[in-house]
Amino acid sequence: MKLLRVGAKGAEKPAAIDGQGVLRDLSSVAAEIDGALLGDPAALSVVQAALASGKLPEVDASARIGAPIARPGKVIGVGLNYTDHAAAIGAAIPERPVVFLKPGTTVSGPYDAIELPRGSQATDHEVELGVVIGQRLRDCPDAATALGAVGGYVTANDVTERNGIAGEPTWVKGKSYDTFTPIGPWLVTPDEIAAPQELSLQLWVNGERRQAGSTGDMVSGVGELLVYLSSLMTLEPGDLVLTGTPAGVAVSRPEPKPYLRDGDVVVVEVAGLGRQQTLATGVRG
Amino acid sequence: MKLLRVGAKGAEKPAAIDGQGVLRDLSSVAAEIDGALLGDPAALSVVQAALASGKLPEVDASARIGAPIARPGKVIGVGLNYTDHAAAIGAAIPERPVVFLKPGTTVSGPYDAIELPRGSQATDHEVELGVVIGQRLRDCPDAATALGAVGGYVTANDVTERNGIAGEPTWVKGKSYDTFTPIGPWLVTPDEIAAPQELSLQLWVNGERRQAGSTGDMVSGVGELLVYLSSLMTLEPGDLVLTGTPAGVAVSRPEPKPYLRDGDVVVVEVAGLGRQQTLATGVRG
Repeated sequence: MKLLRVGAKGAEKPAAIDGQGVLRDLSSVAAEIDGALLGDPAALSVVQAALASGKLPEVDASARIGAPIARPGKVIGVGLNYTDHAAAIGAAIPERPVVFLKPGTTVSGPYDAIELPRGSQATDHEVELGVVIGQRLRDCPDAATALGAVGGYVTANDVTERNGIAGEPTWVKGKSYDTFTPIGPWLVTPDEIAAPQELSLQLWVNGERRQAGSTGDMVSGVGELLVYLSSLMTLEPGDLVLTGTPAGVAVSRPEPKPYLRDGDVVVVEVAGLGRQQTLATGVRG
Repeated sequence: MKLLRVGAKGAEKPAAIDGQGVLRDLSSVAAEIDGALLGDPAALSVVQAALASGKLPEVDASARIGAPIARPGKVIGVGLNYTDHAAAIGAAIPERPVVFLKPGTTVSGPYDAIELPRGSQATDHEVELGVVIGQRLRDCPDAATALGAVGGYVTANDVTERNGIAGEPTWVKGKSYDTFTPIGPWLVTPDEIAAPQELSLQLWVNGERRQAGSTGDMVSGVGELLVYLSSLMTLEPGDLVLTGTPAGVAVSRPEPKPYLRDGDVVVVEVAGLGRQQTLATGVRG
């Protein structure tokens, strides 16, 4: 299934795309698109049956599309997880994944603005495969078990202010601004993603393709990453894991590096997970 | 008011200590001790009036006391924020606060066990003043406004595995294990804390006092810290801010450094906010 959330920010309602491509309101069969739903196969079956019935009301086509999951309990990021990206920025492949946390307040919708922080000098884009947890994982023993706990996949942009990372003891100052994690448009359940390590990822700025890669180039695949993360912390239904970005980010390019500027249009796509389009704005300036 | 949450883990009910020191069940007048309650003066007045009436049922004295707030949306930590601690570990006072994030899954109750991670070599204690946000803060202009947005104060222990920080690009590997943020026993509302920068903090391990300090030695006071954090991310009601630790942690002591071991009893107190007692256990070993 392709699950969505539609409506004003903070008042989104659950929705899904049916077999005919029509957006349907799930309010009568689901309270939210969140960990409780994704971790409950019976509840998902109810939603699927209702969707197949063709009787759910259509959603107004003009409605805003929000982030496809309710506020995650955790947003966990992984750095330097693509061989081509690590090579492009001249970094060694780390022995263990580089892990960082983003506040849940960074999450925004697939067509919302990216608000450049005050004094932004080096705000960069990172197309990523986002993984939403469906089942609790703690000290998970193997990648196959971990993959079985995935509740869904989303297109994500792990927006990053590079000056908040370089030379800093943690990455919080570069990763934490509101709107720095646009996700969606859809959450796709794992039954529709047969090969999560064979997905192409692309990102364009103002129509120019800046990133193109494949999840096949991940250093640690999704299952392996979740095994490692579950050794550090308990992963809960609804948590969001950002799995790293392929080559092509602005920081890896020649001077003058093409960091995001007020008015830039950023299009982000992971094959099968939909395409988001966000406008960089300078409202915090 | 002194607010608490009592009951089995994950099924806590709201409670408070009345004027006679009796623990009263707030279930009839409050759904949870969380951001929604702390940010709502009218709801707090209802609780206060009910408590003063003397008619609320007593809580069974044998009930478990849990963390005094529901799962926070964010747990934000600040490093090197006490002059004596920075001097003791030989670190320079940073120009701007060092900020890190902990997962909400680290939060545990004031008498729960601290579960030492598998292979723990350098798990350390950090007594801290914990600040719970009551009102939304974004780009807050001044310390007085920020202090007015505080919903409550708690005793906290920012448990840290030093080997997950030293030489790491982020602090996630040292700060993220379950049970690494015991808080409580109470949340005290700001009307009862006249001088948050004059609180003594103490921590004992197996009866030996290891940390003793005062919030007067903070590099950035509570209001200043919140102003700075609100320039990086939106602070929301229910978020927890850990404001740094004074001197005396194990890493700053001579070899063999007295890191926490299976069976250690850790007592943590911030004046006016109550005393917690936790047992370090090796269950993850």
